[in-house]
Amino acid sequence: MSEQQSTDKPWGGRFTEPTDTFVEGFTASVDFDKRLYFHDIQGSLAHARMLTQVEVLTEDEYQAIEQGLTEIRSRIEAGNFPWSVKLEDVHMNIEAQLTQAIGITGKKLHTGRSRNDQVATDIRLYLRDEIDVISAELVRLQTGLIEQALTYADTIMPGFTHLQTAQPVTLGHHLLAWNEMLQRDYERLQDCRKRVNVCPLGAAALAGTTYPIDRHLSAQLLGFERPTENSLDSVSDRDFAIEFSSVASLMMIHLSRMSEELILWTSAQFNFIDLPDRFCTGSSIMPQKKNPDVPELVRGKSGRVVGHLISLLMLMKSQPLAYNKDNQEDKEPLFDVIDTAKGCLKAFADMIPAIQAKPEVMREAARRGFSTATDLADYLVRQGLPFRDAHEVVGKAVAHGVATQKDLAEMSLQELQGFCASIEADVFDVLTLEGSVQARDHIGGTAPSQVRAAAHRARARLGA
Amino acid sequence: MSEQQSTDKPWGGRFTEPTDTFVEGFTASVDFDKRLYFHDIQGSLAHARMLTQVEVLTEDEYQAIEQGLTEIRSRIEAGNFPWSVKLEDVHMNIEAQLTQAIGITGKKLHTGRSRNDQVATDIRLYLRDEIDVISAELVRLQTGLIEQALTYADTIMPGFTHLQTAQPVTLGHHLLAWNEMLQRDYERLQDCRKRVNVCPLGAAALAGTTYPIDRHLSAQLLGFERPTENSLDSVSDRDFAIEFSSVASLMMIHLSRMSEELILWTSAQFNFIDLPDRFCTGSSIMPQKKNPDVPELVRGKSGRVVGHLISLLMLMKSQPLAYNKDNQEDKEPLFDVIDTAKGCLKAFADMIPAIQAKPEVMREAARRGFSTATDLADYLVRQGLPFRDAHEVVGKAVAHGVATQKDLAEMSLQELQGFCASIEADVFDVLTLEGSVQARDHIGGTAPSQVRAAAHRARARLGA
Amino acid sequence: MSEQQSTDKPWGGRFTEPTDTFVEGFTASVDFDKRLYFHDIQGSLAHARMLTQVEVLTEDEYQAIEQGLTEIRSRIEAGNFPWSVKLEDVHMNIEAQLTQAIGITGKKLHTGRSRNDQVATDIRLYLRDEIDVISAELVRLQTGLIEQALTYADTIMPGFTHLQTAQPVTLGHHLLAWNEMLQRDYERLQDCRKRVNVCPLGAAALAGTTYPIDRHLSAQLLGFERPTENSLDSVSDRDFAIEFSSVASLMMIHLSRMSEELILWTSAQFNFIDLPDRFCTGSSIMPQKKNPDVPELVRGKSGRVVGHLISLLMLMKSQPLAYNKDNQEDKEPLFDVIDTAKGCLKAFADMIPAIQAKPEVMREAARRGFSTATDLADYLVRQGLPFRDAHEVVGKAVAHGVATQKDLAEMSLQELQGFCASIEADVFDVLTLEGSVQARDHIGGTAPSQVRAAAHRARARLGA
Amino acid sequence: MSEQQSTDKPWGGRFTEPTDTFVEGFTASVDFDKRLYFHDIQGSLAHARMLTQVEVLTEDEYQAIEQGLTEIRSRIEAGNFPWSVKLEDVHMNIEAQLTQAIGITGKKLHTGRSRNDQVATDIRLYLRDEIDVISAELVRLQTGLIEQALTYADTIMPGFTHLQTAQPVTLGHHLLAWNEMLQRDYERLQDCRKRVNVCPLGAAALAGTTYPIDRHLSAQLLGFERPTENSLDSVSDRDFAIEFSSVASLMMIHLSRMSEELILWTSAQFNFIDLPDRFCTGSSIMPQKKNPDVPELVRGKSGRVVGHLISLLMLMKSQPLAYNKDNQEDKEPLFDVIDTAKGCLKAFADMIPAIQAKPEVMREAARRGFSTATDLADYLVRQGLPFRDAHEVVGKAVAHGVATQKDLAEMSLQELQGFCASIEADVFDVLTLEGSVQARDHIGGTAPSQVRAAAHRARARLGA
Repeated sequence: MSEQQSTDKPWGGRFTEPTDTFVEGFTASVDFDKRLYFHDIQGSLAHARMLTQVEVLTEDEYQAIEQGLTEIRSRIEAGNFPWSVKLEDVHMNIEAQLTQAIGITGKKLHTGRSRNDQVATDIRLYLRDEIDVISAELVRLQTGLIEQALTYADTIMPGFTHLQTAQPVTLGHHLLAWNEMLQRDYERLQDCRKRVNVCPLGAAALAGTTYPIDRHLSAQLLGFERPTENSLDSVSDRDFAIEFSSVASLMMIHLSRMSEELILWTSAQFNFIDLPDRFCTGSSIMPQKKNPDVPELVRGKSGRVVGHLISLLMLMKSQPLAYNKDNQEDKEPLFDVIDTAKGCLKAFADMIPAIQAKPEVMREAARRGFSTATDLADYLVRQGLPFRDAHEVVGKAVAHGVATQKDLAEMSLQELQGFCASIEADVFDVLTLEGSVQARDHIGGTAPSQVRAAAHRARARLGA
Repeated sequence: MSEQQSTDKPWGGRFTEPTDTFVEGFTASVDFDKRLYFHDIQGSLAHARMLTQVEVLTEDEYQAIEQGLTEIRSRIEAGNFPWSVKLEDVHMNIEAQLTQAIGITGKKLHTGRSRNDQVATDIRLYLRDEIDVISAELVRLQTGLIEQALTYADTIMPGFTHLQTAQPVTLGHHLLAWNEMLQRDYERLQDCRKRVNVCPLGAAALAGTTYPIDRHLSAQLLGFERPTENSLDSVSDRDFAIEFSSVASLMMIHLSRMSEELILWTSAQFNFIDLPDRFCTGSSIMPQKKNPDVPELVRGKSGRVVGHLISLLMLMKSQPLAYNKDNQEDKEPLFDVIDTAKGCLKAFADMIPAIQAKPEVMREAARRGFSTATDLADYLVRQGLPFRDAHEVVGKAVAHGVATQKDLAEMSLQELQGFCASIEADVFDVLTLEGSVQARDHIGGTAPSQVRAAAHRARARLGA
Repeated sequence: MSEQQSTDKPWGGRFTEPTDTFVEGFTASVDFDKRLYFHDIQGSLAHARMLTQVEVLTEDEYQAIEQGLTEIRSRIEAGNFPWSVKLEDVHMNIEAQLTQAIGITGKKLHTGRSRNDQVATDIRLYLRDEIDVISAELVRLQTGLIEQALTYADTIMPGFTHLQTAQPVTLGHHLLAWNEMLQRDYERLQDCRKRVNVCPLGAAALAGTTYPIDRHLSAQLLGFERPTENSLDSVSDRDFAIEFSSVASLMMIHLSRMSEELILWTSAQFNFIDLPDRFCTGSSIMPQKKNPDVPELVRGKSGRVVGHLISLLMLMKSQPLAYNKDNQEDKEPLFDVIDTAKGCLKAFADMIPAIQAKPEVMREAARRGFSTATDLADYLVRQGLPFRDAHEVVGKAVAHGVATQKDLAEMSLQELQGFCASIEADVFDVLTLEGSVQARDHIGGTAPSQVRAAAHRARARLGA
Repeated sequence: MSEQQSTDKPWGGRFTEPTDTFVEGFTASVDFDKRLYFHDIQGSLAHARMLTQVEVLTEDEYQAIEQGLTEIRSRIEAGNFPWSVKLEDVHMNIEAQLTQAIGITGKKLHTGRSRNDQVATDIRLYLRDEIDVISAELVRLQTGLIEQALTYADTIMPGFTHLQTAQPVTLGHHLLAWNEMLQRDYERLQDCRKRVNVCPLGAAALAGTTYPIDRHLSAQLLGFERPTENSLDSVSDRDFAIEFSSVASLMMIHLSRMSEELILWTSAQFNFIDLPDRFCTGSSIMPQKKNPDVPELVRGKSGRVVGHLISLLMLMKSQPLAYNKDNQEDKEPLFDVIDTAKGCLKAFADMIPAIQAKPEVMREAARRGFSTATDLADYLVRQGLPFRDAHEVVGKAVAHGVATQKDLAEMSLQELQGFCASIEADVFDVLTLEGSVQARDHIGGTAPSQVRAAAHRARARLGA
């Protein structure tokens, strides 16, 4: 058995009994880490090229390795590769096949590295690529939001605080608030990418290697900014997975907030927008239902991503240096965070441009609910009242309005003067929705001209 | 397309465009919920039997349904079932095949229920079975611990607080501490099971149904304790998933603590135990390594389960009644919690009985480190000193021991008397490890006779 | 300094330099654990009584201790106790004052115990009392819900799934769904209490004690069900804090769901209920605002409690036995979970009975939105159509209704027959809201008679 | 009562009953937000200055406000300010006192702003200052690590993977691994600061204001980089609290890892270092104990910070725009994250320079455990064996060593040649610890010269 053992495992020498079969499956990672195959081969090619440069490998050996790995990549992509749980992970699977294909030279590829630095390199390469894909989807979603903001720059809706009607805003302004959240996500992603983009290759098991490696060359061949500074840290560090998951968690929180509003807005009670049928599903029992599945599911998936963040933080808590087997648990959460973030962004980037607003319904909702009460208070201040006193006058007018079911604009001048004698006929100008919105005319304000200017600035900033 | 649509989807009637292809995949759950097939069919059979009893279905219709579903179950188990993402989930896949097999009667199966109560029923049935499997594994692990505790009831080791040597204990006592943790987990699991074991079937979409259903009969046929009390709650409740995940999280924390100690104990520095090779793996680069993979991986997986708990709590936060699509996100975390808990328990239940302690090493570690200092203090108290004063005397003796590199038992009587004149020759009886351990002779204490008695009580309690 | 040191600290003997001043404050817990004073004294009195019974203390010594501790309790409650950070925690503060008051006998109180079992006992006593307070508040809230459910047993409102109008339900039915959630919380609290209610006193530092203690007596004097089984586990176990926080987390999730609905219902768009002014606040700038602060704040506080649960799980992850200083971090999260749960329950228990529904608005909302579409499908099934086909017919009728802005009940018989020839005039009976609601007449269904029966059952179950 | 109400609250006008007394306390924040007083006044002064510039206030009014606020700040700092729960929060408390002090002009200060943008401004100002304090503590800790790394650049210790002896490293190298973690934390803090440092003032309640404000001027007066882009986002955004807590969580994870190692290293089993008494505490019952309290407590506090992160993420999940009362729950977690991070960094920055290593113990630990096995494998590779074959040869030699209790360097040449004939006498050069360490001579490797160079680079990078 020891014979068979030693051909299968890269570490059989000192062991006197084979791994327990259940344990073999329990500790293997190939089922989920095989998705790293592309970056594993990319890393191996660079490592081999570097070893050739420093004359640990010959050019012929390099050629054999390159050809062997290229063929393996093709076989994997053709679904024609004999993945084996016995070989534990993607790295050993590929190396075993390489050695079978090109003989003893295949075994030389592992010179001057270890699985510890190899896997750290692979994940960083993989994550770097995925960050770029996610960034592009994010920009696509932002683009959709900015276009819609321009379309609806003048469309008046109630602005809410505490889900109570507060002041009129424009839908364009509201959509740009969403864009601001995503813009911060974009910036955080790029900051995270900087820290992903360093090269641990050459840290070997934990202490570096005795071979005359050139870590700057390895880094450069792989497009990394620089080699990492410390070998122990290089093999134990999973900050990049945690930082990325933190960024993704916050982004998912933003999507959950957008989802919540989309769900509210498609309810019969709000009825502010239409979601096209193709983003909705129905009910197996209630024939009238048209459910906003996409935003609901995205809202639900926010918990999923935050859960993975916690997994990763808890995974690393109290781990002594350097590599521990615990770290094998970094991959599934990270991969699922990536997949979830990509899927949700794609769904939203497809859906947002297809949303159709119902301006009349929104306007009517804004008209009710005393949304211009602040404007009346501001009017009184301009007439010389301190703001706090003006606030109280208007509060009483609103209480009267609640009792008599009249909005402020529906009261007579005489009624209004009952609350403050200095009110005059020009008050009705400030009580219109358009007047209210246009008056908030400064950077960040909801005046349509400001919304348009903000949209143009946002577009100019995109992806920067 | 609408034609094709209406045959595929159970809800196509009011829709004017088909689901977006990406959205279809994004919102489908069949890839992960197909593992519910067995319990879905179990639930359907009970529902059909009940409908027959109340004469909504004829006996012939029931027979057709039973035969159809039984055949479908066989096909699924033979890997011969055409799962379709277009059909969204396990429920619609099975119903579609049933209707194809037995015609119009298949469509009648859904009478008086909805997917909302159907899925709630399926998960409860599934989880109930899994709780029973997990409970059995837990008992197996506890059995192993109790046997080992009896084997090592007299084996002295250092007891630690703050990872500093505190007082001598026996290894058997230590292992029973682990068993206590697991015993609470077992009790919590059974408490959770009570709340899982109620039947939501008949809640239909959210309000109940207009058919003359007999919910008590459905509950009884499925072995549930009773039907649920409220239809809205029945379809929106996911407490059982959260409570189960809470219980599993705490159990994983316990396994992480046991793992931490196993890892410490197999280090060269502690060297307290041997883990058989079959539970370890080696290193691809360091030929001497024998790594305690199983405890490390289990320790790492504790974060995974807690992460899923958070996902589920966050999923349900702020959800309005009744069912929302968010809830589709309940399954993957729950399933992974189940799989992880089962795997970790199995690995531990296999491994614990195979652990071999090194009594001499443990004893030597206990001998050093002034572990009987408390015994000296107690000796002084029996001679009349208040405890706090005795504590201070011993503290000074220890400081002397640190300076002179002598354990208390290695000091001369004269030296000891230098710290307190009333010390006499019988002090050396209480400074032995055996004396120390045997003196803690009350329920819960580490005296070997108490450990044996505790082990027997623990065994009698098992699975109760 | 060492002199002063040794009088201040209970462990100064072996130390050669005093604690760093910052470290002293950083590691002290008295600022937050002093709230345990009552239960610390309760535990000490029982311990002293037990020591007297087993003749470690004399009756006179016991009397002195009892008098001393009783006086200390009075001084603490009068705000007249010299808490000192130098003395680290509540336990040492009280003991130091006791010794100052009654002399050498005060030092004897600590015989046969350690701070490790002392603090474990104190927290269990404290938590047991708080569970009882929380349970009572929970019952008060449930009582309010059940009364309101009876008041509104016939009040029709739209039942929602996906926040889309689904089927008519009654408000009473909806409120009982909330009660079901809370009933499970109540049961979980009682299950948790069982595991809190065991007595670790006598575990001493970690291994038990050499004094002839009677742990059964200590347990009995403190009202505990039994002594704990294992001393190592007794001082390291914090399961009770975690289990309690899990139970509280789920309860807070339930309150967050109720809050979400209350917030929706008080919005201008839903307008289903009135919250009395005394549970709301206004805006400093918008005079018309009346914000549902209480439900918003409670919704926000759900995250707080879940956060503490995570703290505690993470705290215990990977901790080796037995006690580690990490565990000092168990108190602040636990205390805040208790305070938050109590505060939120009180706020809700006060508020729920004061809510006033607006039946006309709810009814009108239910009337719109095709909420009786399922009833039409059921009608067709009773006429012989398979459910799935009936579903499709109704789907088409709904699509027609959307296009023509007519609810089903507003279509002519002829129009309806256009979708299915077998529809007859009696269809309009099932399309009324009352007909729909009354037809769901089985346990758990929304028929008013069922709602009343359920409310009565719920009331009978309260606090059981 | 309504009279009294309207003087107390800034929003009483439309209310017909006063706030419930319990609700008043439950919803008030002044108990914890009063720590923002300094930044609230800082923000108010800038706002007043800006209002003066745009001629909403006169210069005299500004002077009165400035004098009033300055005096209030003095009174607060002197502990001489009548904080009132009735006035809800720090903002209203200060404004009320200002108005009492300077009359009607005090009421004018709130012109053109709302509590919504005011509180967002205050927290950003506060957090920006705290980030700077934390950054400085972090640099102080890093400085200590780098100095210690230079001190111990040649000190050999066992490098661990899986807590098993892997390869020799130097203690200096290990300490620099810790520094790398902290360096990333530092960079993340600075990235976070960029996003904190924007000015929401002028967003008012949610939509901007009708006053002719100059938001660029406000931003500039407060040292912010720019005004925020969108008013809705400005008042609802709490990203900065979440991002900061994410950064702090990861930093705490790093401190927990350092703590774990310090605790291991001070155990009797490792015995690698001495922690000075002033960072330790003793036991109330075990006189010999010297417990590493500071690292234990810091390890425990990692869960606390991660718990707060979860609170904040969960708080924001699904919140619709713009401000909701939920957000009041942002402060306590954020404040506690700040306090905890600062305290832990201070404790570590004080403690690290005081740690004394025990080089002989470390060296002896490295000597055992076959730590140079990889070096033997590398030796064989240089002799022409493929790495995988060399690995197996060494594995067998190690198995022999385990059986015969000899380290590799203790075997005879003949014994070694039994495993591979080509081994020669020069093999003993590579089997020494110094040889092993020096051979890892590339950037990131553990060779002492590399460690020194890395320490110098790290020092040059500090705080950059």
